Amino acid sequence: MSERPELRVAMVGHAFMGAAHSQAWRSAHRFFDLPLTPRMAVVCGRDPERTRQAADRLGWDEAVTDWREVVERDDVDLVDICTPGDTHRDIAVAALAAGKHVMCEKPLANSVPEAEEMAAAAAASDRLAFCGYSYRRTPALALARQLVAEGRLGEIRHVRAQYLQDWLSDADAPLTWRLDRERAGSGALGDIGAHVVDLAQWITGQSIAGVSAVLTTFVDSRPLGGDLVGLGGRAQAGSPRGPVTVDDAAAFTARFDGGAMGVFEATRFALGRKNAVRLEVNGSDGSLAFDFEDNDVLHVLDAGVEGARQGFTRVLVTEPDHPYAGSWWPPGHGLGYEHGFTHQVVDVVRALAEGRQAAPTFADALQVQRVLDAVERSAADQSRMTPVG
Amino acid sequence: MSERPELRVAMVGHAFMGAAHSQAWRSAHRFFDLPLTPRMAVVCGRDPERTRQAADRLGWDEAVTDWREVVERDDVDLVDICTPGDTHRDIAVAALAAGKHVMCEKPLANSVPEAEEMAAAAAASDRLAFCGYSYRRTPALALARQLVAEGRLGEIRHVRAQYLQDWLSDADAPLTWRLDRERAGSGALGDIGAHVVDLAQWITGQSIAGVSAVLTTFVDSRPLGGDLVGLGGRAQAGSPRGPVTVDDAAAFTARFDGGAMGVFEATRFALGRKNAVRLEVNGSDGSLAFDFEDNDVLHVLDAGVEGARQGFTRVLVTEPDHPYAGSWWPPGHGLGYEHGFTHQVVDVVRALAEGRQAAPTFADALQVQRVLDAVERSAADQSRMTPVG
Amino acid sequence: MSERPELRVAMVGHAFMGAAHSQAWRSAHRFFDLPLTPRMAVVCGRDPERTRQAADRLGWDEAVTDWREVVERDDVDLVDICTPGDTHRDIAVAALAAGKHVMCEKPLANSVPEAEEMAAAAAASDRLAFCGYSYRRTPALALARQLVAEGRLGEIRHVRAQYLQDWLSDADAPLTWRLDRERAGSGALGDIGAHVVDLAQWITGQSIAGVSAVLTTFVDSRPLGGDLVGLGGRAQAGSPRGPVTVDDAAAFTARFDGGAMGVFEATRFALGRKNAVRLEVNGSDGSLAFDFEDNDVLHVLDAGVEGARQGFTRVLVTEPDHPYAGSWWPPGHGLGYEHGFTHQVVDVVRALAEGRQAAPTFADALQVQRVLDAVERSAADQSRMTPVG
Amino acid sequence: MSERPELRVAMVGHAFMGAAHSQAWRSAHRFFDLPLTPRMAVVCGRDPERTRQAADRLGWDEAVTDWREVVERDDVDLVDICTPGDTHRDIAVAALAAGKHVMCEKPLANSVPEAEEMAAAAAASDRLAFCGYSYRRTPALALARQLVAEGRLGEIRHVRAQYLQDWLSDADAPLTWRLDRERAGSGALGDIGAHVVDLAQWITGQSIAGVSAVLTTFVDSRPLGGDLVGLGGRAQAGSPRGPVTVDDAAAFTARFDGGAMGVFEATRFALGRKNAVRLEVNGSDGSLAFDFEDNDVLHVLDAGVEGARQGFTRVLVTEPDHPYAGSWWPPGHGLGYEHGFTHQVVDVVRALAEGRQAAPTFADALQVQRVLDAVERSAADQSRMTPVG
Repeated sequence: MSERPELRVAMVGHAFMGAAHSQAWRSAHRFFDLPLTPRMAVVCGRDPERTRQAADRLGWDEAVTDWREVVERDDVDLVDICTPGDTHRDIAVAALAAGKHVMCEKPLANSVPEAEEMAAAAAASDRLAFCGYSYRRTPALALARQLVAEGRLGEIRHVRAQYLQDWLSDADAPLTWRLDRERAGSGALGDIGAHVVDLAQWITGQSIAGVSAVLTTFVDSRPLGGDLVGLGGRAQAGSPRGPVTVDDAAAFTARFDGGAMGVFEATRFALGRKNAVRLEVNGSDGSLAFDFEDNDVLHVLDAGVEGARQGFTRVLVTEPDHPYAGSWWPPGHGLGYEHGFTHQVVDVVRALAEGRQAAPTFADALQVQRVLDAVERSAADQSRMTPVG
Repeated sequence: MSERPELRVAMVGHAFMGAAHSQAWRSAHRFFDLPLTPRMAVVCGRDPERTRQAADRLGWDEAVTDWREVVERDDVDLVDICTPGDTHRDIAVAALAAGKHVMCEKPLANSVPEAEEMAAAAAASDRLAFCGYSYRRTPALALARQLVAEGRLGEIRHVRAQYLQDWLSDADAPLTWRLDRERAGSGALGDIGAHVVDLAQWITGQSIAGVSAVLTTFVDSRPLGGDLVGLGGRAQAGSPRGPVTVDDAAAFTARFDGGAMGVFEATRFALGRKNAVRLEVNGSDGSLAFDFEDNDVLHVLDAGVEGARQGFTRVLVTEPDHPYAGSWWPPGHGLGYEHGFTHQVVDVVRALAEGRQAAPTFADALQVQRVLDAVERSAADQSRMTPVG
Repeated sequence: MSERPELRVAMVGHAFMGAAHSQAWRSAHRFFDLPLTPRMAVVCGRDPERTRQAADRLGWDEAVTDWREVVERDDVDLVDICTPGDTHRDIAVAALAAGKHVMCEKPLANSVPEAEEMAAAAAASDRLAFCGYSYRRTPALALARQLVAEGRLGEIRHVRAQYLQDWLSDADAPLTWRLDRERAGSGALGDIGAHVVDLAQWITGQSIAGVSAVLTTFVDSRPLGGDLVGLGGRAQAGSPRGPVTVDDAAAFTARFDGGAMGVFEATRFALGRKNAVRLEVNGSDGSLAFDFEDNDVLHVLDAGVEGARQGFTRVLVTEPDHPYAGSWWPPGHGLGYEHGFTHQVVDVVRALAEGRQAAPTFADALQVQRVLDAVERSAADQSRMTPVG
Repeated sequence: MSERPELRVAMVGHAFMGAAHSQAWRSAHRFFDLPLTPRMAVVCGRDPERTRQAADRLGWDEAVTDWREVVERDDVDLVDICTPGDTHRDIAVAALAAGKHVMCEKPLANSVPEAEEMAAAAAASDRLAFCGYSYRRTPALALARQLVAEGRLGEIRHVRAQYLQDWLSDADAPLTWRLDRERAGSGALGDIGAHVVDLAQWITGQSIAGVSAVLTTFVDSRPLGGDLVGLGGRAQAGSPRGPVTVDDAAAFTARFDGGAMGVFEATRFALGRKNAVRLEVNGSDGSLAFDFEDNDVLHVLDAGVEGARQGFTRVLVTEPDHPYAGSWWPPGHGLGYEHGFTHQVVDVVRALAEGRQAAPTFADALQVQRVLDAVERSAADQSRMTPVG
């Protein structure tokens, strides 16, 4: 391993996503045979002191505060963007222009025009430009994709996709950047709905062609300040409040270009559902069901099995012949949330060494952005069925 | 018991619903203390021989073929309508006019005007006029209603309701009356979607104010004839085919008058889901989840419980202090599908003895009909958000 | 149906089991095509007034108080024994001697000598002599038996069987006949442990050859009187107490004659488990798992399935080609506790019409009794591995 | 962090456990605030080349082959023993004698005398001596322990504990060191049964006082060689075979010193159960249930909850106020198998910095060894109830 060339990584942002990405950069080559050895070269943040601490804690060699300088550095090969959505476009475009490979957290951008600009920059470059829809790398979901691709579900008829969280259920949870349209672009829609849009399209191999949507904001002002606990928390009584400028929940029906009917929902108000990324797909020959709250499991129905023994099979996706799983532990010794990020690093590093793009590319992520945009337009137009793109 | 007055029942129709109702009429007073003892006086069907056999098999004293005669008979107190939806209006209106109490299977009618006529007839009568949304009498769902009514969920924010079956997944399942718009009114929407519309409104105590819908027909022709197996089956190869004139699947988002957001789906193409009546309700203080495929269970979350021990509690709804359950077996000795019909009989007989209406009344069922109608109008109008009623 | 000959039934005892059997006698021919039509001729109990009420409520033509007279009556074909275990021997032997068919609730008797006497009487008679281990007629368990019999599990290695209830968890639950060795024979062991012994042997097709056991009584005195709620309840504070003379819980390891290893547990102190009849069987080629708290489901693993899609399949045992299920409702419309009793009636009536015995016979039930006896002997002998029989 | 003192670690063994420990040493201080920063100084193995590769892959500074030299080195503070059980005693005793802290994989040793020697060495030393029963650090199991310790379950009555795997189900899985009594000490009993013995005692706070046991070897010879897949695999047809000298499965009933009754089972033949570490505890006031195949979840029943809403609560143990969970991801973003090892490092490093021992100590692990020994003695003595120790 020591003789393998290094991949020098610069990470911009060091909060929740930064911690997940750091663990991935640190672990990937310990479990997978990688053609390049990641080097955690430099982390970039706005506040010098907090960035310094993050570098220490997360294990980066260097801490800096100016991303514009970072993307120009000769000793950086790949820029990993972990900041809120309003900065993605500028950083990614600059990094690609400077000849860097780019990994960018999802959603790709806060608007379709920004995303288009990014996709154009990627198309004009020979560098890898990857968007971090990390749930694709959950072994159970990678298996889902594989089963559909093998034709085991036949013609796809139904997709029901939900991403349910509850950290805003408390009307006194604090106002954070995720509730600010300027920073976050949208609310539940872009933050978590984007994941299930990406997954549903990727797993079925079909694109969403039209949507009919509703968006709701249940709590329209929230306290400023207050301590975060997890993503939420609770502000002190009597704190001044500011406006919530994004959706609290999004729901939409969808038509897929392959004929499937979709029903989507994203919310942070589903009390008791902590991180329920749920997918069900029904085809003419089989079905799938998944819930990230039981992340190692994919439920698979094969209609070819004799009726008396037919049903959903609870596949524990930890076997050597399951995607990614064989590089970790023996069967039944499950994986966690961060492993998706590690698998993402594996796929990106391998693609990069082979001069390929890895999916989802910026173009793929732009398409998700177009779906989100259609959702917002439909919701603003009496839920009218609205074509994507 | 022997000295209690009889309630003389006439049942029209003797297929699937007729069998369920018969078991209910036969069993209710064996487990519950009823003020009137049901007498299974007469069953009515179109074919004399098949009706005679049904009377024997299902335990009715007499078999006749003319419902118009039945509703006029002096020795009948209540007419129980178990026929397809296209006949409900005529039978119910005539029965009420003849001074009979009426139980009518859901959906109330095949159209809003028919349902309005029925509700008007009920309003003009002093007889009981009841619509058989039997799932309300599943103990777990009755408990759900009770918990919401007690305020344990706080302000309701989300309802997700699905009714998933799969008996049409096979494109060669035969063309039956349930696929004929003339007989059935609609497809999955009225047959099964109606149930979850009723349940969602009843449990939350909120009415659906507007819907944005899509309807789909995946398989537009099916073989004529063929043996039914369950509700579906498979026709012989090469059978001539006729057109499917109803929806195979319906999906819609909904706005409730109390501010909740709803997502509904009804389909007979969800391969592997046999009778998945699923409801989730999220409020500000608690949540509920139910799936009829595990019909004795209600999952309840109480946000008042200390965080470290909070979660969905799997309540096995078979305890003496649960709705209906105490009259049956000891805890954990579960009930089945037909028990909802038995409980329905219990509630109807008690209401009737006390001179009350029992819910759902024809007026309640008319409101469900209006929701179904709004769904169809929205689907025909580019999914535009369409007010109910 | 009306022209079919009647089977005139006399039932002795009319409490919990009496109610379950009555519903079965009333319902069986309504759903299944039976060669004989059961007639609920006479119910027998100790108290005239309560027996009269039971006859009315449960639907028996006549109420009497002397079982000795009943078993002699010419207008009775079958005697159905639903009393506590201390009376089974006398009633069954007398009924067989009088030329009656006999159904007897489990456990067959309170001791091996009694059970031997009964089995001998059955062997000497040409009448049907059946013991009511009703769980065998749960569709999911009948399917389990069928899969093993078809060889789908290969060589059986492990059986883990539990019957867990909790109605004695409260130390102030009242002292009932089930806690009195004279009446009940034993405690959890004979009342509920007997069921899983019977099921384990029946499903695997192997007999238990030896056991190593422990028996425990956690609460050795309980209040006299008090209202029963379900099987348990709670006595008034300060009530006088009497001794518990049976086991509260039983656990044993077992060796099967076919080489399998068994682990058994029966208790009424498993707080939160209401009626958890649980079975897992692991073979060389497949596995099964069942829990009566989800009674319509059998989990089936087929090791022949390709590894990446292998796992336990949740079979909803409500399909037309599942045992018993096709005579009821469409798929997914589940059954309840009492249906096992109905299926038992179906099998008994058919066997009787064909001049066959139905299993479990008295001989089968005697073998279960021998296992229970070996458990008691082992527990009394420092848990030493004790041969059965 | 950089200014914190280092804890210089030497790890002996670099296979399955070595990989898990390495990930733990690498990750602990990235997520938890540790008083000492682990330095992965040296890894020791038998084969120079393979050890060199392991050092590279797992991230150790140096690779050596003589553990006797390692334990004497001045630049090592702690020796982490990840070898098979037959070497534990020698390495641990030598390391303690050399003034090193010791972490030793479970089971502590292959026999009680060896374990006694190790416990004596630990008692005579002022160094930390810790045994790696890592499942204690699964958040859900740590929560279980906490709830019992808080008295929420009341008096403990039942413990049922199973550790079920299936990697030996195939009679042609290869003969590995885990099947060799000389290397492994015992089979399923010590390898996996030891875990549930430790967990059951730790969670309940009660010690096992006596056991009545059976041990079985289903497949008594296996092919030599063959490729390992996970822990098992399949040898080439016709390979020569060698004898299996350990148990394939162990089952025993147990009496706890606090009055609880226990039922234990450990096997590698439970087809379809991959790593099912299962525990159920029933007390007078509450119950717990856990299965590692759903490792983030603890099912908790609180008998204090009103009956109609009582049941097992599915607690997703990923909340900030759950053990260990707050240092990782937001709620619902689950953890995996290796996190228990990371938490173990956290607890060990903190204890060590504070001059405390961390549990399980060598004395705790010796007690587990005594239970395993009693199991073997009971099994060899007709399952007679055998006192522990």
